[in-house]
Amino acid sequence: MPADRTREHTAPVAAARRRRLRADRARQLADLLRHQLLTDGFPDGVLPHEDAIGADYGASRNTVRQALDLLRTEQLVERLPGVGTVVTCQKYPHGLDRLMGLAETLHEHGQVTNEVRTMSPVPAPGPVAARLGLQPRAEVLYVERLRRLGGVPLSLDLTYIPMDIGVELLGADLENTDVFRLLEQITGRRLGTAEITLEAVTADAHSAAVLEAPRGAAVLMLERLTCLSDGRPVDLEFIRFRGDRITMRGLLHRSA
Amino acid sequence: MPADRTREHTAPVAAARRRRLRADRARQLADLLRHQLLTDGFPDGVLPHEDAIGADYGASRNTVRQALDLLRTEQLVERLPGVGTVVTCQKYPHGLDRLMGLAETLHEHGQVTNEVRTMSPVPAPGPVAARLGLQPRAEVLYVERLRRLGGVPLSLDLTYIPMDIGVELLGADLENTDVFRLLEQITGRRLGTAEITLEAVTADAHSAAVLEAPRGAAVLMLERLTCLSDGRPVDLEFIRFRGDRITMRGLLHRSA
Repeated sequence: MPADRTREHTAPVAAARRRRLRADRARQLADLLRHQLLTDGFPDGVLPHEDAIGADYGASRNTVRQALDLLRTEQLVERLPGVGTVVTCQKYPHGLDRLMGLAETLHEHGQVTNEVRTMSPVPAPGPVAARLGLQPRAEVLYVERLRRLGGVPLSLDLTYIPMDIGVELLGADLENTDVFRLLEQITGRRLGTAEITLEAVTADAHSAAVLEAPRGAAVLMLERLTCLSDGRPVDLEFIRFRGDRITMRGLLHRSA
Repeated sequence: MPADRTREHTAPVAAARRRRLRADRARQLADLLRHQLLTDGFPDGVLPHEDAIGADYGASRNTVRQALDLLRTEQLVERLPGVGTVVTCQKYPHGLDRLMGLAETLHEHGQVTNEVRTMSPVPAPGPVAARLGLQPRAEVLYVERLRRLGGVPLSLDLTYIPMDIGVELLGADLENTDVFRLLEQITGRRLGTAEITLEAVTADAHSAAVLEAPRGAAVLMLERLTCLSDGRPVDLEFIRFRGDRITMRGLLHRSA
């Protein structure tokens, strides 16, 4: 019966296949190559020759070229005369399974440094106060940091911290230390959980300039409300990751 | 001592604050309003008057206007003459805590329908075969679907399924049913876990056209390898979500 079903569907499927645009086939191929790029699947940093890719993936040379064009537009690869197509991807995996700070999650990849653009006590706007469990207009510490890995901008982080904890942050080494670690040091408690929301957004002109990204670049936006292990919310953050620098990796389970 | 520290830092902080660009203040405000937009924080669908926002957030009228401009550029709000700034956001939250199909996770928001653009047995390219635990060139079912909620395109999904399961999918109602549900029906097993990678990328011209999104739109790209409860990998997917239609929400834990 399975064989019958296959045959029954072969004719319309074959027609659909012929009609498929090369752009669809190129996207399909680019996605497969993309995974290999992101996971060091080309250990010497050079992609196989176009003909070899075409043979491996059953794709025409034009489709292979168009797929490589897509990856080049994303600055994942570059064509070097006399060498071929080389991997230029600088994406780092941020763990999604555990609540971790940037320096923690990327420690294998280099040193994270933070440029503190603003640090200032401010009266908490209503929604910030509500989420941090504070009275409206209660003082919070607002911190804005541009975060780099090996000098390359990764993210722009806007952070609100209740002032009883924030006051201790004012003298801390924010340039070289994750706020998560400082929060645990200051409070003497472990962090517990964080509610997160992830989105893909187009960078506005100013945010793109701060992140040294092209105008209109895709940004991975993370909003995160982090609580101590006793449930107290202590850290509200709005983080713009450069889309071309960060991936989020995790393991999901079907059962609750 | 905390009070001393605050004072000690007040002078440089105040200077930094004066120097802050309006663009930075507008981004800060836009992020706060954005959260309210995404979580139905304006139940009648209209934002407060600019002056009221300014008072609530301690922001100047020009900053408020610039923040609303940022949200308008993202098509989260629109200005209607005689009404004010209204919420036009059509973002739906996709759960990140449990492994769920699109129709499952969005069932409160409407009916998900799937346009099957391609469905065809293909020889598995090397990396696909490896990830699905198959012999190289073993046959897999390749399915390409454009997924809509209430008629609006949400995502473009490229899916590879081992052929022993895929053959049963050929006659299934893929237009109206999540592949996840069909996989569980066909195999008689629950799904177990999925390895996921999330990225923000800029849509190429063709993908943007298929998704009916503006050229260069931000896309939330999800790569997902899903296994049955017995650990067998059965579903490799490359999913492009329209950035303006989907958020990913979850809860992270500090401890492993």
